[in-house]
Amino acid sequence: MGNIGGTYEPLSVKTLAGRLGPVTAISNRLGADISTWTSKEIGDGNLNLVFIVSSPLGSVIVKQALPYVRLVGDSWPLPLKRSFFEYHALVRQAGRDPGTVPEVYHFDETQAIIVMEFFTPHKILRHSLIAGEKHPGLAEVLGLFCARTLFRGSDLCMDTAKRKADVALFAESVELCDITETLVFSDPYFNAERNHHTRQLDRLVAELRADIDLKVESQHLKSKFCNNAETLLHGDFHTGSVMVSESETKVIDPEFALYGPMGFDTGMLLGNFWMAYFAQPGHADTPGGRAAYQGWILGVVEEIWAVFSAEFSRLWREERSGILYQQTLFEDQGHRLASEQALAHRLQHIWQDTLGFAGVEMIRRTLSLAHIAENDTIENEELRADCEARGLRLGRQLVVNRCRLHSMATVNDLARIIAKEAKQ
Amino acid sequence: MGNIGGTYEPLSVKTLAGRLGPVTAISNRLGADISTWTSKEIGDGNLNLVFIVSSPLGSVIVKQALPYVRLVGDSWPLPLKRSFFEYHALVRQAGRDPGTVPEVYHFDETQAIIVMEFFTPHKILRHSLIAGEKHPGLAEVLGLFCARTLFRGSDLCMDTAKRKADVALFAESVELCDITETLVFSDPYFNAERNHHTRQLDRLVAELRADIDLKVESQHLKSKFCNNAETLLHGDFHTGSVMVSESETKVIDPEFALYGPMGFDTGMLLGNFWMAYFAQPGHADTPGGRAAYQGWILGVVEEIWAVFSAEFSRLWREERSGILYQQTLFEDQGHRLASEQALAHRLQHIWQDTLGFAGVEMIRRTLSLAHIAENDTIENEELRADCEARGLRLGRQLVVNRCRLHSMATVNDLARIIAKEAKQ
Repeated sequence: MGNIGGTYEPLSVKTLAGRLGPVTAISNRLGADISTWTSKEIGDGNLNLVFIVSSPLGSVIVKQALPYVRLVGDSWPLPLKRSFFEYHALVRQAGRDPGTVPEVYHFDETQAIIVMEFFTPHKILRHSLIAGEKHPGLAEVLGLFCARTLFRGSDLCMDTAKRKADVALFAESVELCDITETLVFSDPYFNAERNHHTRQLDRLVAELRADIDLKVESQHLKSKFCNNAETLLHGDFHTGSVMVSESETKVIDPEFALYGPMGFDTGMLLGNFWMAYFAQPGHADTPGGRAAYQGWILGVVEEIWAVFSAEFSRLWREERSGILYQQTLFEDQGHRLASEQALAHRLQHIWQDTLGFAGVEMIRRTLSLAHIAENDTIENEELRADCEARGLRLGRQLVVNRCRLHSMATVNDLARIIAKEAKQ
Repeated sequence: MGNIGGTYEPLSVKTLAGRLGPVTAISNRLGADISTWTSKEIGDGNLNLVFIVSSPLGSVIVKQALPYVRLVGDSWPLPLKRSFFEYHALVRQAGRDPGTVPEVYHFDETQAIIVMEFFTPHKILRHSLIAGEKHPGLAEVLGLFCARTLFRGSDLCMDTAKRKADVALFAESVELCDITETLVFSDPYFNAERNHHTRQLDRLVAELRADIDLKVESQHLKSKFCNNAETLLHGDFHTGSVMVSESETKVIDPEFALYGPMGFDTGMLLGNFWMAYFAQPGHADTPGGRAAYQGWILGVVEEIWAVFSAEFSRLWREERSGILYQQTLFEDQGHRLASEQALAHRLQHIWQDTLGFAGVEMIRRTLSLAHIAENDTIENEELRADCEARGLRLGRQLVVNRCRLHSMATVNDLARIIAKEAKQ
């Protein structure tokens, strides 16, 4: 099928067609005449090179890992092998929730290149959330994706020997895990070197870093992240890893994939929606001009959780073929109620983890290295700090009180109250 | 250093000296003249060949895995690779709690042979518990062993990259994990093929298998066992894996080693002590003749937990060098109290898991394939069933109410009450 081979070398717009031309999986889509190919570098992420390669016949995405963190530079080296983990995660996600992640056309491990489906005219969801655009069907796709990938990648469903082999495979992703372990779970809670925050938050930041309950609970969550290998997670499931069009929602960029607790993906996702909710006043043309859109965001959050729970429950009832909660012990003994009882406990467990990880995400995206565009693009510093402070306050509540928050309605009410009252 | 090499072949008393003679790690201890060596097969376990090899100069233990489950026969194949996992576990345990596990002199992966230190005049603790013999220092060694191996094998202490590599290594131990997953966590809760129980227990067994809360909670514990890779466990830490003399306590046989939840080792151990407690009337010469000894057993249980907690706390304060609950976030910020708060939470967590896994162990050792000698050697079936029923009743309480049992005094009181009142 052709290959690029050789020693690792970063692609450029100039060399791309020449180097990828021999790969039939690509030339099958773009045509063999590479003079008709055009390449554009569009990587706006923190880590990689990303190109759109087009010809009159079609377009593909070419993603290549760089041997360092792009956001920081070559002072922060990062293994090319993350491309291998992204490839393996994409293949598994495609099997578990067909049609939601880009189809992989070609993978070159040495060059750390994945050639895959180009979604057009889709845009990154985070940009939509800044622009105030609604997307019908968004919550349903995201809720289903979470339920299907989290359930089907776990011992609730998989053959456990395969799952154990997969745990071993992804256990090698040490450096990517370290980024999450450090930037998400540790740096925000002390004055770490790479941290930065809007200066008007100084007082609140000091308060949070002196908050013993918050620190202890965030570290319990870190411990779960590091040690509870429940399922294959996307691992970086924020609104920058979601692409949307008028009618479609897609999920991209699982290079941080790891085995971890189910609530991590759902929590990171919901935390990003709540931050987008709080950021809206920073993007309103007139005071209150984004109120309806804020309502839409909270509706999306509510619907994601409802769809997730419903689909997870359906899978529990219909596809529970793994070594956990075996039907042999429950349904086959006439104890359907036991199976429902266990399901309710597990959903409660995922719910509490979800809230906790959402809170951790909201805090780290304001105090640690990588912030969110919804806040960063608010030029008025006072206003930005107000939006960020609200996220911090909800985040703190979720981390500390995650086991005592009853329902999504309760949490969304809390968000509404904080949106009205809290300031820096 | 010499090696046995070649294709795998089980040792026998006749072939042993000839085959192991060239291994200098052994001849250094027994002398090069193999005509002075004598071999005796002593394997009374369920899985392996075990020989004592002696000469006038010394003795060693030679343990060789068989390609099937010895207890069942060659209809139940089992990979030789368990010897590899045992070897790796022994080496790690020796590093984490020096002097408690046998020193390994030689390991031959192809032959699945470990040659190791012979403990003499030690006997298996389980036999002591039948004979009614006390062992000073027993609880201290066991409590320290648990605290040191569980703490030092976790992300509380280890370099996480090394821990992740180790998780990947032990994730290959699929078949041994399957034995625990099936025999400990599933079979007892339905009418599985390999189960057997004393017939007088029929009514109680039916009651337990219809007990929805028990079934659901036992499966939550299974889920923890399968997915919470907190630390390297011994994995089969019952009183048959402990050797005792007048003055020494040693721990052997970690071939079931796996990454799992800390409370699994402590729980299995305590569950076996509680079963030994209930079995005493079956071994008394006169009614009540073992009352004082029963008191000693409960004292050992109490002391094991006290020593474990104290040592775990000491290690938390002095050796917390891993990625979890980093000193950077706590002590270094003047928040020593936060570190103590987190420690208290973690101990509470291990305590609840310990009780749950103890309960699961007590149930499976009465209803599943492998029972305990303390009960099996009670010839009077009625009496045996009474002893077993008491274990089942405490086990059920521990599994279902593990999060509501406050202290070891409470649990031991419960054991005393059940010992007096409960019958089949």
